[in-house]
Amino acid sequence: MSTSTYTVQGMTCAHCVNSVSAEVGRVPGVTAVAVDLATGTVTVTSQSPVDDSLIRAAVDEAGYEMAN
Amino acid sequence: MSTSTYTVQGMTCAHCVNSVSAEVGRVPGVTAVAVDLATGTVTVTSQSPVDDSLIRAAVDEAGYEMAN
Repeated sequence: MSTSTYTVQGMTCAHCVNSVSAEVGRVPGVTAVAVDLATGTVTVTSQSPVDDSLIRAAVDEAGYEMAN
Repeated sequence: MSTSTYTVQGMTCAHCVNSVSAEVGRVPGVTAVAVDLATGTVTVTSQSPVDDSLIRAAVDEAGYEMAN
């Protein structure tokens, strides 16, 4: 099992959290997504490591941006 | 035609605007809803006047609160 943590900018409410969770959760291999609204931290769990670029693309698709 | 303006608290992003618009738009008689995110102003248009309590209930149902 693999866990990666990212910081996402611009999430302001629970709807934003839901959007990011849903989009990142659709990335193949991802088994769980946890979002902390206060810090913008997105923790992604997967069976094997998932390429960062796929997570970044999903965050972008949801309408947000990685902090780095 | 009747137009009423309300101030709603706690809307922080476009998703919030969509939620309030959708819920208020379901109130019988309402023909249009315009939300200004920056000011929290919700402008409700209807064919005949709609009871404020119905608008307030819809805002509440969406998860937000009238400023007054």
